[in-house]
Amino acid sequence: MVKQQRAARTRRALIQAAAEAFTQDGFTSASLAAISRRAGVSSGALHFHFESKNALAQAVEDEAAAAFGQVTHRAALHGGTPLQGLVDATHVLMSLIAEDAVMRAGFALCRDVTRENDAALRGAWQRWVEDALSRAEQAGQLAEGVSVREVTTAIVAATVGLEVLGSTQEQWLSRDAVTRLWGLLAPRIARPRELSALSCGPSRPGSPRRPSAAPRPK
Amino acid sequence: MVKQQRAARTRRALIQAAAEAFTQDGFTSASLAAISRRAGVSSGALHFHFESKNALAQAVEDEAAAAFGQVTHRAALHGGTPLQGLVDATHVLMSLIAEDAVMRAGFALCRDVTRENDAALRGAWQRWVEDALSRAEQAGQLAEGVSVREVTTAIVAATVGLEVLGSTQEQWLSRDAVTRLWGLLAPRIARPRELSALSCGPSRPGSPRRPSAAPRPK
Repeated sequence: MVKQQRAARTRRALIQAAAEAFTQDGFTSASLAAISRRAGVSSGALHFHFESKNALAQAVEDEAAAAFGQVTHRAALHGGTPLQGLVDATHVLMSLIAEDAVMRAGFALCRDVTRENDAALRGAWQRWVEDALSRAEQAGQLAEGVSVREVTTAIVAATVGLEVLGSTQEQWLSRDAVTRLWGLLAPRIARPRELSALSCGPSRPGSPRRPSAAPRPK
Repeated sequence: MVKQQRAARTRRALIQAAAEAFTQDGFTSASLAAISRRAGVSSGALHFHFESKNALAQAVEDEAAAAFGQVTHRAALHGGTPLQGLVDATHVLMSLIAEDAVMRAGFALCRDVTRENDAALRGAWQRWVEDALSRAEQAGQLAEGVSVREVTTAIVAATVGLEVLGSTQEQWLSRDAVTRLWGLLAPRIARPRELSALSCGPSRPGSPRRPSAAPRPK
């Protein structure tokens, strides 16, 4: 049991180290030697867990995809309306990209020309945005004359842009930047009666949807 | 004179080939041998013109920056209002990224982790968007309650996103995609009286600003 725990911890450290190395150096330039060194494990231990650099990248991508699945699942559970779920998911995703090396690497690998890939994670985000907006339309949340297609174009492009800009200048991933984006888009996208209930800032689980309106106890 | 022309043509071919190779393989993975082969010149000719791969990348970036300068210069000349100039510049820039290997590489190098760089071209675009929006605000073009800062965030993020998405799926750089983006943003950004005169589609030099309104001669 202890042995299994140690193995799981080593695997975890390797995925984390690989994620950091892929983001920093790119897939091809990141060396397995540097990854095992960064993880603090021997090169033998790396090869015991992963047969190739490709297998490591696949593990990073799988883990990022699993975390992404949780983001969208939670947005559906807590978001209330489809539009609020979309705003919330954007905030959670951008803060994960800022803070979590595996999620950051998952998206960085999507645009890494040195690794053959189909940008699956970015594709999943794209499809989820479109699906959320279709649900918002069905729920009568979208403003008149606004199409799911044009809103999808704007939101997918803007969020992919935030991810790329944030890879070198972290303020693009900040809650302020995401709130500014939604503050601009929401009045154009949402039907007026939806707008008053829509919070463009980050939601906090268990807290009221508009935390700024509620004074905090001293 | 003939010799000078030949040298200029060789240099041109090398910059073009390097641009293609950097975009396709990344800076570090692109080899000088492959670049000279792609350009159809000897390795000696490459080294006569460029002392290193870095010097080649610099030449690509310089040429992309010069072309970018022309885009913004022309937008200022032909665009009429600051806001129309911004819309027009976005269209021209995205179509150049789609069609011109050097411009495409200029932006790809900005996000290439295998080359040390300060993303100068992307930074220049960012500053120009902000400057155009400040001029639009001074000219009374921006809708009430909309700030230069939030519009800059949205437009810089969305255009950077289009560039990245377009690097693997060209339809993101199409005039349709850019027109959709502006069709969504313009009614939120522009003062109502500006909106009716603003064309969200690509302008054609010498043609009326709204070509779709003018029937074409048969």
